[in-house]
Amino acid sequence: MNLNNKPVKGFLLDITGVLYNSDPSRMGRVIEGSVEAVNRLYAESVVRFVTNESTRSRKHLFEKLTRLGFTLKEEHIFMPIPEAKRYIKEHNLRPHILVHKGIVNEFEDLDTSNPNCVLLGDAEEGFTYESMNAAFRVLHTLSDPLIISLGFGKFYQRIDGPCMDVAGFVRALQYACDARTFIIGKPEKQLFKAATDDMGLMTDEVVMIGDDIVSDIGGAQKAGIRGVQVRTGKWRESWMNHSIKPDLLVDDLRSAVEMLLKKKGN
Amino acid sequence: MNLNNKPVKGFLLDITGVLYNSDPSRMGRVIEGSVEAVNRLYAESVVRFVTNESTRSRKHLFEKLTRLGFTLKEEHIFMPIPEAKRYIKEHNLRPHILVHKGIVNEFEDLDTSNPNCVLLGDAEEGFTYESMNAAFRVLHTLSDPLIISLGFGKFYQRIDGPCMDVAGFVRALQYACDARTFIIGKPEKQLFKAATDDMGLMTDEVVMIGDDIVSDIGGAQKAGIRGVQVRTGKWRESWMNHSIKPDLLVDDLRSAVEMLLKKKGN
Repeated sequence: MNLNNKPVKGFLLDITGVLYNSDPSRMGRVIEGSVEAVNRLYAESVVRFVTNESTRSRKHLFEKLTRLGFTLKEEHIFMPIPEAKRYIKEHNLRPHILVHKGIVNEFEDLDTSNPNCVLLGDAEEGFTYESMNAAFRVLHTLSDPLIISLGFGKFYQRIDGPCMDVAGFVRALQYACDARTFIIGKPEKQLFKAATDDMGLMTDEVVMIGDDIVSDIGGAQKAGIRGVQVRTGKWRESWMNHSIKPDLLVDDLRSAVEMLLKKKGN
Repeated sequence: MNLNNKPVKGFLLDITGVLYNSDPSRMGRVIEGSVEAVNRLYAESVVRFVTNESTRSRKHLFEKLTRLGFTLKEEHIFMPIPEAKRYIKEHNLRPHILVHKGIVNEFEDLDTSNPNCVLLGDAEEGFTYESMNAAFRVLHTLSDPLIISLGFGKFYQRIDGPCMDVAGFVRALQYACDARTFIIGKPEKQLFKAATDDMGLMTDEVVMIGDDIVSDIGGAQKAGIRGVQVRTGKWRESWMNHSIKPDLLVDDLRSAVEMLLKKKGN
């Protein structure tokens, strides 16, 4: 285990592809052993959840996890929506909003008149030529076009196959309008940092466990956090040759927790 | 006129934004003076049309131009569709096709079983999450994912406002899949070269007249052709500071033809 022999005092967990797999019904299917692994982490260590999930609110995500059998606290889930709202308000931005229909009302209290930026999330079926063109027309008129992106995943794994995530659609608008992009969520530091602070730990005292080599592993490492790659979710064997090298590669969350809690005990 | 004092023996004309402007009805509106300008070019010089139009076949484009009052020969129109078909056949490619519904049947004779690349054109309303994801899934399984793009425009000007062109959607898939892209059409050389050869002229003997600083002017210049920028179509004043500098900037096609035929006469 290339984990620098530094103790692991806290755990950050990605959700999709680590706790459950997505399916087209949006119900999710638990990854074997992950409910028990989360229980062990709550009992024997400290744990927070760091996800780029942007197709439902934190409340709905919490309810979904509960329905799937997980026991956790809602406030332990760190995700881009609240961070994005804070950022938008702090900078007096008035976004044109193109996000999943399931989270549109999360942004109801923002001023969206005469927009001076575009807020983009994984809109799934909401990405149409018409909606992309509407966002394009906003950016096209701005002298300093800005896209705020909820996460920046290339794709995610659904049971029926891989699905494009928000990053491609950001790139589309960015290229068409020569826009700047501000990413909220993994692989950027904000969420990792907020979750680690919330545990009262230093970044080199925690590990991030995720299925995305770029967002989870690369992002964590850039934030000074060790990255543990699971072979579930969107994991692909070809990533063995990826320029990003995880600190630890394990079969699944259960194995990761078994190995690292043992390590902690030593 | 910074045209190097080299005679102009032939003219290449972009179509949309130079001969007519697009409108949502797809009828088109003639740009004043352009019908007469084309007639003068046919009478007093040599002319070919170089367009990235990929939402209709050459036959339909020719019929549209005729209906709008233009007199020209169908075989004088150079556009990406036939070039793309030639390239695909030559390289034994089997494309997954995502193009405008108006040109799908142009590709009917291609082998599209077990696809080993994606052919992308300006699909307009055909760009949905479902269609993008279907293309993504093809690319995602390939060890050397390849996108063939019909043109690579950022946007085009329609009477109701600017509209995203194919380039953004190529970028979306390219980023999500780490794909290679092969562009057929402007700003690449193939079409400029084919049209110039067809006139029996050298590239430094002709001018390209267009409204797109990148596709028309930059593309022509890379091919050794002088680029004449018109202030119609998608022209924007901010392009005065663009890194690409046209050899000549004129109000419209009519002015360009007046100035350059005079020059020719000298």
